[in-house]
Amino acid sequence: MQLSSSKQRPVITFLTDFGTSESYVGVMKGVVLNICADAQLVDVTHDIAPQQVAVAAWQLSTSYRYFPARTIHVCVVDPGVGSARQPIAFSAGDWFFVGPDNGLFSYVLAQQPVHEAVVLANPAYHLPQVSTTFHGRDIFAPVAAHVASGVSLDALGTRVDPSTLQRIAAGPPERQGGQISAHIVHADHFGNLISTIPFSLVPDLFSSASVRLDFPSQGISVSERRRFFSSATNEGEPFIYVGSSGYVAVAIQNGNAAKTLVVADGAAIKLVIADE
Amino acid sequence: MQLSSSKQRPVITFLTDFGTSESYVGVMKGVVLNICADAQLVDVTHDIAPQQVAVAAWQLSTSYRYFPARTIHVCVVDPGVGSARQPIAFSAGDWFFVGPDNGLFSYVLAQQPVHEAVVLANPAYHLPQVSTTFHGRDIFAPVAAHVASGVSLDALGTRVDPSTLQRIAAGPPERQGGQISAHIVHADHFGNLISTIPFSLVPDLFSSASVRLDFPSQGISVSERRRFFSSATNEGEPFIYVGSSGYVAVAIQNGNAAKTLVVADGAAIKLVIADE
Amino acid sequence: MQLSSSKQRPVITFLTDFGTSESYVGVMKGVVLNICADAQLVDVTHDIAPQQVAVAAWQLSTSYRYFPARTIHVCVVDPGVGSARQPIAFSAGDWFFVGPDNGLFSYVLAQQPVHEAVVLANPAYHLPQVSTTFHGRDIFAPVAAHVASGVSLDALGTRVDPSTLQRIAAGPPERQGGQISAHIVHADHFGNLISTIPFSLVPDLFSSASVRLDFPSQGISVSERRRFFSSATNEGEPFIYVGSSGYVAVAIQNGNAAKTLVVADGAAIKLVIADE
Repeated sequence: MQLSSSKQRPVITFLTDFGTSESYVGVMKGVVLNICADAQLVDVTHDIAPQQVAVAAWQLSTSYRYFPARTIHVCVVDPGVGSARQPIAFSAGDWFFVGPDNGLFSYVLAQQPVHEAVVLANPAYHLPQVSTTFHGRDIFAPVAAHVASGVSLDALGTRVDPSTLQRIAAGPPERQGGQISAHIVHADHFGNLISTIPFSLVPDLFSSASVRLDFPSQGISVSERRRFFSSATNEGEPFIYVGSSGYVAVAIQNGNAAKTLVVADGAAIKLVIADE
Repeated sequence: MQLSSSKQRPVITFLTDFGTSESYVGVMKGVVLNICADAQLVDVTHDIAPQQVAVAAWQLSTSYRYFPARTIHVCVVDPGVGSARQPIAFSAGDWFFVGPDNGLFSYVLAQQPVHEAVVLANPAYHLPQVSTTFHGRDIFAPVAAHVASGVSLDALGTRVDPSTLQRIAAGPPERQGGQISAHIVHADHFGNLISTIPFSLVPDLFSSASVRLDFPSQGISVSERRRFFSSATNEGEPFIYVGSSGYVAVAIQNGNAAKTLVVADGAAIKLVIADE
Repeated sequence: MQLSSSKQRPVITFLTDFGTSESYVGVMKGVVLNICADAQLVDVTHDIAPQQVAVAAWQLSTSYRYFPARTIHVCVVDPGVGSARQPIAFSAGDWFFVGPDNGLFSYVLAQQPVHEAVVLANPAYHLPQVSTTFHGRDIFAPVAAHVASGVSLDALGTRVDPSTLQRIAAGPPERQGGQISAHIVHADHFGNLISTIPFSLVPDLFSSASVRLDFPSQGISVSERRRFFSSATNEGEPFIYVGSSGYVAVAIQNGNAAKTLVVADGAAIKLVIADE
């Protein structure tokens, strides 16, 4: 298999709740290009619902590992901008992460070994004037660009014990026998309902005698299972499958499960697996 | 006229129905950059209505030819992902195309000579683990990156006769004397109604004595014609013009024809040209 | 402080009202890459409300200065495309600007010294066929790419006196004693209401005895002031602050001021500052 011989250009990704209707994201990229002109700039998404740190943390968890080693992931969903929350950067697994220490990195911290973490205390790597409202522009973008240019994390500020970084209660749910209480982390663009239950927790999902996924608040149960998304049976009926990120999910073929079942982000679910 | 002397970097475009609210598109780009670090990545659009293959085929037809020779166009509107539909790549005209064989490439196949087409049967150029739900990430993105890096189409899989590739019934309408039955392929962002009638089929559009474009379902006829979009007459009245892609269209100056006339994608139309 | 040693690649930004649902923006980038293959392409925004030149001018004013020197800013909000309005390019401050002469550049022209301005009269730097509806593709994109490749402004057309370029009435408001009549230029993605009053006009905003910002049409007055966005008082109450672009603004913490106060772009306001 032939590999590209092209030289490595630093990759910087952006994940925010800024939307794309204003110049906020473009401005962050302008700041980056002033410092690191040959960076590859990639948008992950800017459509996180305003200030929904938990959803942003999830989206980051589905994407970071597909990027090249040394990619710098800039994440800014920052309801506490200007308050006491710390701006941080850290290296974990093969990647760098830059953003506010508010739980955005909960999944990454749970999934990857952290090599080094710093509080961004050195103003030499920020814009000369730092506002109280837009640290994405004034701190996180320039820091990311400096990391891309080869600046060490240690130069950016003061070391912090990775175990003290903020985590939201986003750990995987626990299985008790055949039952798992969990929730829907996200209804995606297609209306597919993605749960917090990793397939690794339910290897018997397709082999067990029966499965039932309950939405207690909606009074709905889904029990059809599909290994393949497009199995041509019961169009219009919701079914359980494993999403592309490796989590148990519910969809309606050629339909929109979130709208049909009236389920939104955060909905409680219970999965019941019975062997006979 | 001075031409740039900059070296050619491979260009990869993306056209999907993934939206931009999740990390799907970003993940595809991450996969590409792992394989081809210096690619130029360009979004065509990700806002195709979910699984509307015909609209996606149309959008591709309006854009592919404006990109440099050897650009790789990755198109993923893929309601049949995981089913029997084949993943393909082909070269046609000056460009490469990668995506599912489901009619997405109907216009390209009608407009350009196909040099070589393959079914993507060689897993060496896919991600190590291929899901049943996200071939954009697992097959199409890595294949595009390998093509950008110089891998030949033949290495990617098995040759297929281009004449067997799927086509949707998207050929140009036929003219019978002064009458053409056609439809609106797309109501664009401005509310302009773009038809399937190429200007080349109606060279007498502006020179004939009269023209009438009927929307039978709406009971509406438009007969005003404008060579120039901003001719300052009858603001608020719908008029016929030739859109930037070379197709007959209907607009309302400083207004939204789709909303005012209550016309959506797919609406039937009849154009009647009378010489006297 | 270590600076990147990476070679400078030309940066081209795009600010339009084209939306991202069609291929318009992608097509402009394809045209650019045919001429200047190694350009860095950055989207500022494409979600300007259709044909709202004043809002586009404002968005440009908040972003252009954050980009590297010699960046080429392509701006296309162009209700008069195909009419007598002139296509122009000019250099001002450290940057280049390309687009229609319809007031889009009002703020830039007020803020930066113009070095050279030309009407884009030389078709050698346009696409071979120029439509009457899509100058973004046919004129502005190729011109920007040629400027990025080193073509001089003088080669592109005929010099024009910068003082004759179109300006919308977008100058800063005037202060009369403690009173300023102004308006809301934009309700942003978070619902924050950004006014046309620069902080430099009201250095006493936080030190004066009292401040009142009136929305006469809504019958609303806001008098709470906050230096820091996240001061933890009176959640749910609107407050006055200084936005990240340096203008007086109104927000509701963890809320949406535009929706709550029912205020939209263009709303009239009056700021009253009293020393005792």
